[in-house]
Amino acid sequence: MKQQKIAILGAGPSGLAQLRAFEAARRAGVENLPEIVCYEKQNDIGGMWNYTWRTGLDKNGEPVHGSMYRYLWSNGPKECLEFADYSFDEHFGRAIPSYPPRAVLKDYIMGRIDKQAISKYIRFECPVRWVAYDESSKMFTVTVMNHKTGLQETDEFDYVVVATGHFSTPNMPYFKGLELFPGRVLHAHDFRDALEFADQNVLLVGASYSAEDIGSQCYKYGAKSVTISYRSNPIGFDWPEGMEERPLLTHVEGNIGHFSDGSTKQFDSIVMCTGYLFHFPFLPDALRLQTNNCLYPDSLYKGIFFQPNPKLIYLGMQDQYYTFNMFDAQAWYARDVIMGKIALPEAEDRLKDMQPWLERHEQLSNCNESIDFQGSYIRDLLAPTDYPEFAVEEQAELFKQWLRHKQENIMAFRENTYASTVTGTMATQLPTTWLDIKGDSLESFMSLDFIESNSLDKFD
Amino acid sequence: MKQQKIAILGAGPSGLAQLRAFEAARRAGVENLPEIVCYEKQNDIGGMWNYTWRTGLDKNGEPVHGSMYRYLWSNGPKECLEFADYSFDEHFGRAIPSYPPRAVLKDYIMGRIDKQAISKYIRFECPVRWVAYDESSKMFTVTVMNHKTGLQETDEFDYVVVATGHFSTPNMPYFKGLELFPGRVLHAHDFRDALEFADQNVLLVGASYSAEDIGSQCYKYGAKSVTISYRSNPIGFDWPEGMEERPLLTHVEGNIGHFSDGSTKQFDSIVMCTGYLFHFPFLPDALRLQTNNCLYPDSLYKGIFFQPNPKLIYLGMQDQYYTFNMFDAQAWYARDVIMGKIALPEAEDRLKDMQPWLERHEQLSNCNESIDFQGSYIRDLLAPTDYPEFAVEEQAELFKQWLRHKQENIMAFRENTYASTVTGTMATQLPTTWLDIKGDSLESFMSLDFIESNSLDKFD
Repeated sequence: MKQQKIAILGAGPSGLAQLRAFEAARRAGVENLPEIVCYEKQNDIGGMWNYTWRTGLDKNGEPVHGSMYRYLWSNGPKECLEFADYSFDEHFGRAIPSYPPRAVLKDYIMGRIDKQAISKYIRFECPVRWVAYDESSKMFTVTVMNHKTGLQETDEFDYVVVATGHFSTPNMPYFKGLELFPGRVLHAHDFRDALEFADQNVLLVGASYSAEDIGSQCYKYGAKSVTISYRSNPIGFDWPEGMEERPLLTHVEGNIGHFSDGSTKQFDSIVMCTGYLFHFPFLPDALRLQTNNCLYPDSLYKGIFFQPNPKLIYLGMQDQYYTFNMFDAQAWYARDVIMGKIALPEAEDRLKDMQPWLERHEQLSNCNESIDFQGSYIRDLLAPTDYPEFAVEEQAELFKQWLRHKQENIMAFRENTYASTVTGTMATQLPTTWLDIKGDSLESFMSLDFIESNSLDKFD
Repeated sequence: MKQQKIAILGAGPSGLAQLRAFEAARRAGVENLPEIVCYEKQNDIGGMWNYTWRTGLDKNGEPVHGSMYRYLWSNGPKECLEFADYSFDEHFGRAIPSYPPRAVLKDYIMGRIDKQAISKYIRFECPVRWVAYDESSKMFTVTVMNHKTGLQETDEFDYVVVATGHFSTPNMPYFKGLELFPGRVLHAHDFRDALEFADQNVLLVGASYSAEDIGSQCYKYGAKSVTISYRSNPIGFDWPEGMEERPLLTHVEGNIGHFSDGSTKQFDSIVMCTGYLFHFPFLPDALRLQTNNCLYPDSLYKGIFFQPNPKLIYLGMQDQYYTFNMFDAQAWYARDVIMGKIALPEAEDRLKDMQPWLERHEQLSNCNESIDFQGSYIRDLLAPTDYPEFAVEEQAELFKQWLRHKQENIMAFRENTYASTVTGTMATQLPTTWLDIKGDSLESFMSLDFIESNSLDKFD
């Protein structure tokens, strides 16, 4: 049998999950593995987790992938994303707090990656230019720009795995007067350093994670005031003095923002926290996922296989409570289908499988239900694969606690601690309040001396 | 004979020139005109001349085209770009100063466009996704994303005219420490409003037009200090107090810039005025122009026809002293070749034609020689076409005066006046210094009462 060939587009968490899935099979002695090429736009693995100071376009003129900013700390408990086969204890050698900064979490996520083993698959600085599918040969043709050589490369593949993420292309609305606003107007995607906004009156438009976290960052790093403008409902947290919510921005006049309740306020900067677009400029319509940000896109069987052409695989295209473990579950399932271990049903049967999920998805009415929905979805994927069992339901309970803790105190929720669902280890306390810890590097965080005697016992 | 079909990529000055060239032929009664489709990424004509408040990516997630900023005034005399068949007098009905703001110049440039006549050719919000060429059919296949419908469109063409510009994709170098700089780091492409930088110490890296003009803007609108860092040679103007030049930035430590002469300075913002990339993500290598920003790219016959495949036409890909008139001359020539009025020589003969130009280009040693070179190039294009005769050599002399006037006083050169090469009309004086005129709208500029008796005589 001819060796299959697979293209993985992107070497972020989802693409890496796919690489690891095949690598795990290789180590388990599975034969007849497909040939794999992973094309990555950036010059390193990690996707969104690679912090970049760049905004707009990167050094090769390609849209910047990263939306993360300096001083970003995890906005959910690390215990909600812990790997069953690679605990935090194993990685750090001691207990640490539940909400670490980006660099610390990245260190953990990357710690499990055998860079040596996977690097041979990855072509860096190779954004995908165009993908075509030939109905007669049943093969994909992928053309990429190799910025290292300055030349394009084209190759043929049996399967294409799209793992390019969906939090990179800003959704940027217009409000009347923005073109004359005498300060910076940016999307959350281009927010990098809260210190730029110290002593400023900052307006954030939007009422989701970006607004709540960037608002908190600006407050923490000395903004004069932070105003969050919501369309439908306020976020509703008990904001500290200097932070407030207002209904929707209607327009801007000079440096004055006007809101739908008739109120006005002077601003120095405006940050649009208005979400992201699903953007696949390298895919023809026949292959292009079109969805909003939700827990169950309606054209993906098992949340993975593109219904019109299931040799096209999408990873991580859901809105996310669960993250890395979910990408893994998807990647393991996709691997087993590609290798023939799991049979892919005919189109009609795939649709029958999707129908009840879509119906339940339609009925979701609150966050707790959504968390359970995504947990069930992951359980469904895990069942037929050999991905290590992990505590899906216990992690769901942690997500629900997290939501309550945010509601209790949005400025202090990162001071809560949770027990590992893998090792039982209790996270350590932060030595002081989150608001007081201004550094965010791995070194500074790990030197805060979080060691507690009860945690080290569990390790080794 | 089968009707030919032509795709024009871009409806900025170059693309519009191509549309006008064909429209002029149509009005002159020429028959058998090709079918034309012009694909434009933005939602209006004008290209770079459409001011946008957006940075990074546009509302459709496509890279923002515009690099212009508020308060931008022409940095060259308007008399250097006056059209022989459409004078400033005809457009404005009176004499105006030589250096108008963007909106005023745009009004003139667009005044000559018959929007009604050309709008039928243009498909807005249609960025090009991919162009392919079929050697057997000798046809191009162009695929665009129509963001208005959310669907892609594909069509076949005999010729493709690439008129997408080359001042849109930033060349953004890295300097050690930028990732920890606690302020905004941006490329000139994303510079929008100098007021954002009032009271700041601003560092500009680069020593060309962007640095000199953005530096002047920041000074004009209240920056605390402006420092320009050059790689090879200082710009060398007599800068006002608060502006200075330093040799190359070596690295950044916190908010301190270090320079190659060992000096240091604290900065609040850093603007990279480091030029642009030729970026055609929609073209395969076999069709892709690869050049630096120069007066004679070495793979373009007559500066237009792509030597490996002359059915692919590039407009405006030169560095520019002359602008709109040069685009016109190129478009008229391209039209006449497409319509068989001018014969396209064989590859070898094209090369023979290019050789002396490339040799002369190689020998250029100063700006005056470069101006004359571009003038000669335009003359060569004009000779066989019916494009209206214009005063190429007189405009060259104005360019040389302009360079002298900048050298005399970089903050006041826009107060100089020149005589029209078309009507002889002398430009009016600005009513006060450029530094004192803070508005930049068409209305505010035109209401400054520039009317002088000697000028109106000339007009109707």
